[in-house]
Amino acid sequence: MAARLSEHRYRRRVQFAEVDAARIAHFSHFFRYMEEAEHAMWREAGLSIAARDDGFGYVRVGASFEYHAPLHFEDECDVHLRIVKITRASMAYACAVTRGDERIATGAMTIVCTTRGADGRRVSAPIPADVRDRFDIAEDGA
Amino acid sequence: MAARLSEHRYRRRVQFAEVDAARIAHFSHFFRYMEEAEHAMWREAGLSIAARDDGFGYVRVGASFEYHAPLHFEDECDVHLRIVKITRASMAYACAVTRGDERIATGAMTIVCTTRGADGRRVSAPIPADVRDRFDIAEDGA
Amino acid sequence: MAARLSEHRYRRRVQFAEVDAARIAHFSHFFRYMEEAEHAMWREAGLSIAARDDGFGYVRVGASFEYHAPLHFEDECDVHLRIVKITRASMAYACAVTRGDERIATGAMTIVCTTRGADGRRVSAPIPADVRDRFDIAEDGA
Amino acid sequence: MAARLSEHRYRRRVQFAEVDAARIAHFSHFFRYMEEAEHAMWREAGLSIAARDDGFGYVRVGASFEYHAPLHFEDECDVHLRIVKITRASMAYACAVTRGDERIATGAMTIVCTTRGADGRRVSAPIPADVRDRFDIAEDGA
Repeated sequence: MAARLSEHRYRRRVQFAEVDAARIAHFSHFFRYMEEAEHAMWREAGLSIAARDDGFGYVRVGASFEYHAPLHFEDECDVHLRIVKITRASMAYACAVTRGDERIATGAMTIVCTTRGADGRRVSAPIPADVRDRFDIAEDGA
Repeated sequence: MAARLSEHRYRRRVQFAEVDAARIAHFSHFFRYMEEAEHAMWREAGLSIAARDDGFGYVRVGASFEYHAPLHFEDECDVHLRIVKITRASMAYACAVTRGDERIATGAMTIVCTTRGADGRRVSAPIPADVRDRFDIAEDGA
Repeated sequence: MAARLSEHRYRRRVQFAEVDAARIAHFSHFFRYMEEAEHAMWREAGLSIAARDDGFGYVRVGASFEYHAPLHFEDECDVHLRIVKITRASMAYACAVTRGDERIATGAMTIVCTTRGADGRRVSAPIPADVRDRFDIAEDGA
Repeated sequence: MAARLSEHRYRRRVQFAEVDAARIAHFSHFFRYMEEAEHAMWREAGLSIAARDDGFGYVRVGASFEYHAPLHFEDECDVHLRIVKITRASMAYACAVTRGDERIATGAMTIVCTTRGADGRRVSAPIPADVRDRFDIAEDGA
């Protein structure tokens, strides 16, 4: 069986439309970079994070970034995502954005597995085994 | 019965995240401004353009803009949308973006009414009467 | 002299392009709503947050959101921004997004005043007096 | 000397934040895909389209798309950009977005070379020779 994944490195180039009037990548785009890295990790695990026909879907309950240095147009950055916690219904990621050796930003994001309740609203639910079995916690901090 | 609508004026302020590295509103955002004006017109008509439970939905088949002058951060512009054509299954809009007396951009957009075919794909369908009865073609160019 | 501002309420409608495949406002857009509220507060204070000719500009050093309930297409929400801390070179905001009485999301954001250093890089600098004199800390939580 | 470029193929995966409430890539994002392909072509030519210190910059004067079929979350598409016209101060592109053999969308975009006039406004200017010498018109249609 394939090894469980606990981290993923995603390379991303800053696009023109993502740069704001201060000529740096707008701070809101880091959240998209982090999510793109997450979805790339899920694809590497043979999964898609999109809502499934059986109703399971993943909602974000928290997200944050601290910004250390700016990214500019056409910069290439590495988005390093690590799983830092897995509970019955949730997963938490830590994220480091770097450009070469330079630390650009540090992020975090928590998702909760949900399914549709009787009234159609999403309620938290245990992560299905076929998803849970594909992931593990990253061993160390960094 | 309420009068049919054939045009709508929508006021929009340019936000920081919409301004690009050249310090002007990124050209892709004009398409969002035009769509926001469309949805505001539909709301004024007592409708929502969101896909309905009965399967009807509206897809864009064409969109264009010509740009005459730039918009900057915090500029307020007027997005003037007019219906220029209605067929059995489609509607075409013309759009003028202005800032005061200054002509900023001129756009066009065509939407097609669709419903879900047997295979789940969207196929064109006559605009439902309760929607069609709310709109009319704008009388003149301008 | 005009009263100092310590909070701002900004009403925002969720637009179609902001809603993701899960049919809720994408989590990254909350950061734009929070920033739009901030810039609206600065405009109400007679200021613009855009970089000035004298080199002063404001960079974000941290931003976070916790999400309690989703926003849907065409929902109107209130973005309530409050200043919770002002230091020599920084300001920190707390943000509550609500829809009617319902709590949707809770955010925070910190900005730092900067000017251009000798090498062109931004370095932190005291908030200019004409800006500092327009703001104050909000008295209580809520 | 390096061969002149007249076309570029750019592969792009549809990201979650780009998919709208109809569960397809929002029509405005095609304009970003087309621009990303353009900037990738300029990079391949050893250039950057960003405004230069000497004042030259490129503004978009027109952009359009016709949509034939939708793109979904995680789809990979090819954005094929071709130069169809070069004048003293402008370049025009044609763009075809495909997914495998399937035709998804057909676009066009025209940019104009500008420099800063005496009043700071952008005025059209001849494309600098070092840029002009890197590009040529694509030989045939499709």
